Amino acid sequence: MFKIALIGAGRIGQVHAENIANHPNTCLASVVEPYDANAEIVCNKYGAQRQSVEQVMQDETIDGICICSATNTHADMIELAANAGKAIFCEKPIDLDLSRVRDCLAVVSNHQAPLLVGFNRRFDPQFVELKRQFEQGKIGKASTLSIISRDPEPPSAQYVNVSGGMFRDMSIHDLDMARFILGEDPVSIYATGSCLIDPEIGQAGDIDTGVIVMRFPSGAIATIQNSRQSGYGYDQRIELHGELGALQAMNKNENHIVSMTDTGTETAKPMHFFLERYKDAYQVEWQHFVDVLNGQSPSCSGYDGEIALQLADSAIVSLKTGRCIDL
Amino acid sequence: MFKIALIGAGRIGQVHAENIANHPNTCLASVVEPYDANAEIVCNKYGAQRQSVEQVMQDETIDGICICSATNTHADMIELAANAGKAIFCEKPIDLDLSRVRDCLAVVSNHQAPLLVGFNRRFDPQFVELKRQFEQGKIGKASTLSIISRDPEPPSAQYVNVSGGMFRDMSIHDLDMARFILGEDPVSIYATGSCLIDPEIGQAGDIDTGVIVMRFPSGAIATIQNSRQSGYGYDQRIELHGELGALQAMNKNENHIVSMTDTGTETAKPMHFFLERYKDAYQVEWQHFVDVLNGQSPSCSGYDGEIALQLADSAIVSLKTGRCIDL
Amino acid sequence: MFKIALIGAGRIGQVHAENIANHPNTCLASVVEPYDANAEIVCNKYGAQRQSVEQVMQDETIDGICICSATNTHADMIELAANAGKAIFCEKPIDLDLSRVRDCLAVVSNHQAPLLVGFNRRFDPQFVELKRQFEQGKIGKASTLSIISRDPEPPSAQYVNVSGGMFRDMSIHDLDMARFILGEDPVSIYATGSCLIDPEIGQAGDIDTGVIVMRFPSGAIATIQNSRQSGYGYDQRIELHGELGALQAMNKNENHIVSMTDTGTETAKPMHFFLERYKDAYQVEWQHFVDVLNGQSPSCSGYDGEIALQLADSAIVSLKTGRCIDL
Amino acid sequence: MFKIALIGAGRIGQVHAENIANHPNTCLASVVEPYDANAEIVCNKYGAQRQSVEQVMQDETIDGICICSATNTHADMIELAANAGKAIFCEKPIDLDLSRVRDCLAVVSNHQAPLLVGFNRRFDPQFVELKRQFEQGKIGKASTLSIISRDPEPPSAQYVNVSGGMFRDMSIHDLDMARFILGEDPVSIYATGSCLIDPEIGQAGDIDTGVIVMRFPSGAIATIQNSRQSGYGYDQRIELHGELGALQAMNKNENHIVSMTDTGTETAKPMHFFLERYKDAYQVEWQHFVDVLNGQSPSCSGYDGEIALQLADSAIVSLKTGRCIDL
Repeated sequence: MFKIALIGAGRIGQVHAENIANHPNTCLASVVEPYDANAEIVCNKYGAQRQSVEQVMQDETIDGICICSATNTHADMIELAANAGKAIFCEKPIDLDLSRVRDCLAVVSNHQAPLLVGFNRRFDPQFVELKRQFEQGKIGKASTLSIISRDPEPPSAQYVNVSGGMFRDMSIHDLDMARFILGEDPVSIYATGSCLIDPEIGQAGDIDTGVIVMRFPSGAIATIQNSRQSGYGYDQRIELHGELGALQAMNKNENHIVSMTDTGTETAKPMHFFLERYKDAYQVEWQHFVDVLNGQSPSCSGYDGEIALQLADSAIVSLKTGRCIDL
Repeated sequence: MFKIALIGAGRIGQVHAENIANHPNTCLASVVEPYDANAEIVCNKYGAQRQSVEQVMQDETIDGICICSATNTHADMIELAANAGKAIFCEKPIDLDLSRVRDCLAVVSNHQAPLLVGFNRRFDPQFVELKRQFEQGKIGKASTLSIISRDPEPPSAQYVNVSGGMFRDMSIHDLDMARFILGEDPVSIYATGSCLIDPEIGQAGDIDTGVIVMRFPSGAIATIQNSRQSGYGYDQRIELHGELGALQAMNKNENHIVSMTDTGTETAKPMHFFLERYKDAYQVEWQHFVDVLNGQSPSCSGYDGEIALQLADSAIVSLKTGRCIDL
Repeated sequence: MFKIALIGAGRIGQVHAENIANHPNTCLASVVEPYDANAEIVCNKYGAQRQSVEQVMQDETIDGICICSATNTHADMIELAANAGKAIFCEKPIDLDLSRVRDCLAVVSNHQAPLLVGFNRRFDPQFVELKRQFEQGKIGKASTLSIISRDPEPPSAQYVNVSGGMFRDMSIHDLDMARFILGEDPVSIYATGSCLIDPEIGQAGDIDTGVIVMRFPSGAIATIQNSRQSGYGYDQRIELHGELGALQAMNKNENHIVSMTDTGTETAKPMHFFLERYKDAYQVEWQHFVDVLNGQSPSCSGYDGEIALQLADSAIVSLKTGRCIDL
Repeated sequence: MFKIALIGAGRIGQVHAENIANHPNTCLASVVEPYDANAEIVCNKYGAQRQSVEQVMQDETIDGICICSATNTHADMIELAANAGKAIFCEKPIDLDLSRVRDCLAVVSNHQAPLLVGFNRRFDPQFVELKRQFEQGKIGKASTLSIISRDPEPPSAQYVNVSGGMFRDMSIHDLDMARFILGEDPVSIYATGSCLIDPEIGQAGDIDTGVIVMRFPSGAIATIQNSRQSGYGYDQRIELHGELGALQAMNKNENHIVSMTDTGTETAKPMHFFLERYKDAYQVEWQHFVDVLNGQSPSCSGYDGEIALQLADSAIVSLKTGRCIDL
């Protein structure tokens, strides 16, 4: 039984807390959380104790830490945990600043600390199945990859201000997914975007609608479509086209009921947001962290986190200059 | 070029008129129709002349007749045409009275007249494709067949009075379809029904909602679900289950647009009624009648018309007695 | 925290054991199980102790019992638990003999023991959603209900011998579902069936393919199609037609991937069997038993178990006599 | 009845010949075609006479001409017909050279000749319905438009050599469709592409896989994905996302049969190619040309043809330079 300390017990922290507690090989030993309310929810529910960061790092019984705190604390927590010899799970991103990410990963590397970066979609059974069928040769060599990712509704302007912008905050998942599916790193990136949904997002200097195109060494081309507002729930689709055909990962809907009436045939909307849509992905992700605790290499490394951020940064340059950026 | 006389230029007669005129090997030579308005539409559109029944039968240039007149005239027209040596296409049913049907078919037989009975669904490309995949062995030996047939809205009570009742008027298509798909004749039939849509239909002694179950020598079981009102267009589905799986013929919808909004995901309704849904079936049917004119055996014979009516009659007995009827 | 004793730790018992252990208000205190292997799996996994039936009934700390033992022990266990003042969850059926069921329920009634009968499909979120939309008036008054239930593959002939036959073993769920959806009790039942899949089932005097038709006081008609072998996983669909349209509960598939290649467009099969398909239904069911422990009336009572068995018995009479049975 | 001369009786010419002959207000009077075999097919089938270009232009009984000859003859034919006072239907493109197109359109303009350019997809009932629902406000203001267009298999290298390249030959339809759906002209275009299917296409200096991104004045962004080989028939989909949701035009499949077996659930492929997929679009298009003959303005003008070619040319510049081109 591995003892886990949770750093940050907000919305996503509580998702991980449940998975930690339910997994037969991990238990939630302690929680670091500045807000009493969040800390109490998790401590009461899973019998965890509340600790400070220093206590966690000095506590030799703690095997792994799960970092779900604010983005600007991630790199510090990773470094402390690497120093303390803990296995590290960290929610994306490592940091919004690429040089800070690189410094942090150097520390991780020096300590040979096991680090799993939480690109949760890599663990989604749908996308894993699509990749499996692709790798089994069902559609031959890849030609075009299309990733659609739309949030149900825009975040607050306040959040947008600290998010690093849509490409670093939201598209970063899709940039990683393109590398994950195709198994290669892009050679160029072009991006464009608009503010069409919420003028406050535009006033904050950001976009809410974007398209990114990446070229890969094999000649394959990936297209990403992002929106901060779908109007119909969480739109998370992937379509991969190859020599012999195409594979699609469709949305998961709220239910499987079809109604047929005078106004048409109706099915349910896609599940509302990531907590519902990726509920099982978070479980698979945690299972993989248990594998990492048992000595396996992380399938989503610090390097993957670094590259995704670098691509997001290049997308921003492309958006601002109107140029296609060579990588 | 075969010259065709159309007997009856109402709604379904006009469907056939167009197919006759458009087919490269047939032309619409003459029309028998009591109402001037209908007659003029067809004569003007296709350059046909108006004739009486007697003129048609005596006109040696007429190769085939297409009977679309009122149901109670079908058997007379068939006999006259058989006597006159014409090839005969007749809309279902031959007659609502089984003994009249048998007498009529005896005349047809005596003259060895080619007679194609218009069970249009046998020519529907969807149902033909389902049967083809079944016969190719895709699902092995048949076990259960489910036929769903719902009209968009109920007919007038006036029509119900002369229709012979829902089983003879509407279910007769499905009774024939079960024989067509399974390739055998049933050994028993059970039927039940209700009047749930239009009380006037009930007052006319008929039902508007019905279920029929038939057993076949192979052990296969067919279920038919009928309604005079779907609420969402013309519901025409078949599902055949066998040892290795199932085949479904789905509805054809008004269009291929999907909308995704806050209220759900919406596609179009099924096509409204038989004129739209079976537009291509009527064309294939007419092509087959041209094959019959060229000497081929009719794939849907007088015998098929007789059996379907006999099954409808038995279904009515079952409905009234609550007993399963052995055939 | 309610303490639960599990009677029977086989396949379905292990499903309930997990739900009992995971629920925040119940814990698995003890297990009664004749086979050491099964008992050890559950005791080790959830920290439960092994007890005899007598020990469970005398153990005053046990609040509820969960009966998952062999069918022929259900009624005895229910009576013992009712005498001991425990809340009772019992897997269907109460017994295969209707008079034994009635005797048992009299005991339950005398002790006013809370009894929840495990018709798991009543708790399936899909069927619950269909019922909710129906009750909200989306399709108006019901006319025809069609229930399709096909197992992926037939059970062993050995199992068939003790199962009470397909109608009592398998269709009983669908008979109950028809009452659950329509909210009324049928007035007549007709059934037919064949042995088409496994000749050993026929030699055991049973069928593997069946169709049941029931009429209800409102005039609504329900049709059930059953097969012991689908060829494509667990086929569990419901379609309800009403004045204004229809509602369908579709299958849940193994994944959401679509492939488009030269041979066609392909999606995954339905989930393999009940353990996967009804995983969430079992969880909702257990939540309801916790509500019963807290004083709520069981939504699926002993009476529901009795009626479903009575309908299955009548279906068998109809199958054997070829008559429609008035109820 | 308008008399029509067909210039070019190859594959697409024969599609138009049938529609001309079947339309109640047009007849196929004459055919200009260098190959005897093609000319005979059409003359025999529709009773048309064979003429030379000069004869057609001097024949005062000819009301309209339908240009389906080789691309490099289109502009000449248009000018001759404009001079001769005929109404003109011309298959896309007007020419592969933009200055030639402009010269030709100046001639058309001088003669105020009615000219309909055959962007057939504008008349496809599916895309028209999508546009209708969009314009009715179903999804609010447009944000992203995604057009997928994949041919079933690549053309011969010989054809590629005279085609003007994939963007001018194939993407031109999608470039036009983006303007048609969004109702505005783009302000920038970015394109990239690869040769992944047929090396001979690459040796001919062309690509077989491409992605185009266009920005519009409203901020809307259109993405086009093209491939010369789908592997599964003709893939023709449009997805339009707006403030309130999304609209999708799905593929039309070869049939409506679904099979469920051990290997999965299977539906038919998309219709093979444009002759099948756009059969009804060509009929609607011809109906519109009859409207033009009757004095209506062409809904797809020479200007539309010019702009689409200009966009294709800009896409080629973008492809070659890697820059986003301002328009």
